[in-house]
Amino acid sequence: MTSTAVTGISELVTNDPARERGLLGVVQDAAVVVDEGRIAWIGPETDVPDADGRLELNRQTMMPGFVDSHSHLVFAGDRSAEFVARMTGTPYDGGGIAVTREATCAADDEQLRALVAARVAEMNALGTTTVEIKSGYGLTVEQEARALRIAAEFTTETTYLGAHVVPLEYHDDRAAYVELCAGEMLEACAPHARWIDAFCEPNSQYAFTEDEARHILTAGKDRGLLVRVHGNQLGPGPGVQVAVDLGAASVDHCTYLSDSDVEALAGSGTVATLLPGVEFSTHSPYPDASRLIAAGVAVALASDCNPGTCYSSSMPLMVALAVREMNMSPEEAVYAATAGSARALRRDDIGTVRLGTSARDLAVLDAPSYRHLAYRPGMPIAHRLPGTVL
Amino acid sequence: MTSTAVTGISELVTNDPARERGLLGVVQDAAVVVDEGRIAWIGPETDVPDADGRLELNRQTMMPGFVDSHSHLVFAGDRSAEFVARMTGTPYDGGGIAVTREATCAADDEQLRALVAARVAEMNALGTTTVEIKSGYGLTVEQEARALRIAAEFTTETTYLGAHVVPLEYHDDRAAYVELCAGEMLEACAPHARWIDAFCEPNSQYAFTEDEARHILTAGKDRGLLVRVHGNQLGPGPGVQVAVDLGAASVDHCTYLSDSDVEALAGSGTVATLLPGVEFSTHSPYPDASRLIAAGVAVALASDCNPGTCYSSSMPLMVALAVREMNMSPEEAVYAATAGSARALRRDDIGTVRLGTSARDLAVLDAPSYRHLAYRPGMPIAHRLPGTVL
Repeated sequence: MTSTAVTGISELVTNDPARERGLLGVVQDAAVVVDEGRIAWIGPETDVPDADGRLELNRQTMMPGFVDSHSHLVFAGDRSAEFVARMTGTPYDGGGIAVTREATCAADDEQLRALVAARVAEMNALGTTTVEIKSGYGLTVEQEARALRIAAEFTTETTYLGAHVVPLEYHDDRAAYVELCAGEMLEACAPHARWIDAFCEPNSQYAFTEDEARHILTAGKDRGLLVRVHGNQLGPGPGVQVAVDLGAASVDHCTYLSDSDVEALAGSGTVATLLPGVEFSTHSPYPDASRLIAAGVAVALASDCNPGTCYSSSMPLMVALAVREMNMSPEEAVYAATAGSARALRRDDIGTVRLGTSARDLAVLDAPSYRHLAYRPGMPIAHRLPGTVL
Repeated sequence: MTSTAVTGISELVTNDPARERGLLGVVQDAAVVVDEGRIAWIGPETDVPDADGRLELNRQTMMPGFVDSHSHLVFAGDRSAEFVARMTGTPYDGGGIAVTREATCAADDEQLRALVAARVAEMNALGTTTVEIKSGYGLTVEQEARALRIAAEFTTETTYLGAHVVPLEYHDDRAAYVELCAGEMLEACAPHARWIDAFCEPNSQYAFTEDEARHILTAGKDRGLLVRVHGNQLGPGPGVQVAVDLGAASVDHCTYLSDSDVEALAGSGTVATLLPGVEFSTHSPYPDASRLIAAGVAVALASDCNPGTCYSSSMPLMVALAVREMNMSPEEAVYAATAGSARALRRDDIGTVRLGTSARDLAVLDAPSYRHLAYRPGMPIAHRLPGTVL
């Protein structure tokens, strides 16, 4: 591999506060040199040093690739009819997650791998360069471990989510399922997972109570997994407090927060990950990101791509929704979808453009400014860097 | 050119009420034969006749291509800073349409042609097969005529919109600009235009009053142009009534409607074209499509792609917004974005899939059902049919 000078960059978003301007550390009229697949030089185009090759962009924007820190990609089956019923207010008893579970468990490894591969390819095509993938549609020891084995073929950010819902066969004995999640299932899944997660939500009978979530997450933490939490999605609840207490990297959803939740987050190392695609696709009220930002809480954006409540993995759409619906500026939203979500994954090698950054972790926009992500909703303007440079 | 059997169609949306199911006339597990570039056979895949070639889709959806019956593509310049100011509530005196006018008039024909070509290509890539293009950023005789000459290179659906705003130099003599629009400018533009349009909006000092709009539109009608109207966008107003009185094919925006507006539309041949991308990008309330549909009004969806109030041409996003924000079912939204907007252009050769339909007017979705357009917001699942079949 040889070095390539990439020029014609209208705006370079570095997310590096030491750079020229603002939260995003934007360098105007920039160039970078990629050497051995990594950024070796950053600066104004007028100063670009010689390199073996040259890639001339067309006054486009370069930025860190999107980091999608919350997704549920390992599934089979179709739930578009359930979506339509929900959006049109039609009664529908389709079974929800149980439907996806059945289809997922019925799929063989090859089928499931092909589905995940297609979904990751869709994400990459829209500028996402890092993706977290959760289990949670197996809900047996074997199926959860299988989901994580397959997920690990695509990312290092794999999350054990046996505690997604209490499956039907345990509704009369929840304690047994909680023990399974914290015991045998954890043991089988931990080798394939970096993270443990739980859906802590007193407003759903199928989710986990505070005590149940604490028990499962603590067992995972003791087993060496890092903690993240689904919390405060459907109503006020203990999710944020559980996450902060356990030193979670992130608590995700955060739609319903009390003042003490916001305070707890502000004083913690836990990121609030907002998932506006879910509110879009479930007709729910959006969280108020500006309240969190004003309080000093670190905020991330992710897609929550899943077949039930948001079957979109478009990070550009999440940025546009954050600006339209959640009182975020385009600058804050782009930061949250890159550096913010990198922090939600406790990663400092992605989400920024610095010396040493891998060219595989860069995105290019067919637009002169990062502002066009919100200005051009629904337009597929974000891509990875062309393969020739990678 | 030879015949091609296209198989593997999970759902075929025909918009033909004589077909199997519902408003969209969906045929499940369908095939079509394309002969000499036109549909020569439609039916269940099990009955598909022999053809010279075969294109096997992967359980995808085939449907009429999107008809985008409202766009302003002939412009130069960038107004993303104005967008950011609006979304973040920051005071901004950028000049609005005047900024676009200045940049557009400064661009030479070649530059303008390249910009329009790129925008049409973006639309085609998202499944739009017919696009209406308005003038309206020139506001002089020469510049309006030039915009329409260039637009006519890309579509037959060209619209003379000299009456977009009253330009600065006429603010002290509006009557003179109205006469120009109805006289010399109309004469220069009519040879390149199928339609005449006016922004009839008493809630903006830069738009046209009822009397002004009637005068200009009537002159255009007398000159042989077909009528369409921008109306009722910013508040209640006479736009709908003007459109109905003049037998307009469409009145566009329709955000603020009185009961008598709805009644007038229901008894007319005028389509109500809704443009939810504008409400998305201006933080405005959405129109209630279900009220119109319940009253029997014909409804269309279009993008209004323009640099000021909606720089998106994604018809899939417009469908998703219509479902999320305007009380439309996915079925109604897809119909409105195809057959509805074809009707808004008084076209019966597009917006449906029938014997004789051109293969160039078809779209394919990377999804098993049209429902995925709303179910997968922000995902670029819609395309034109592959070139080999065209």
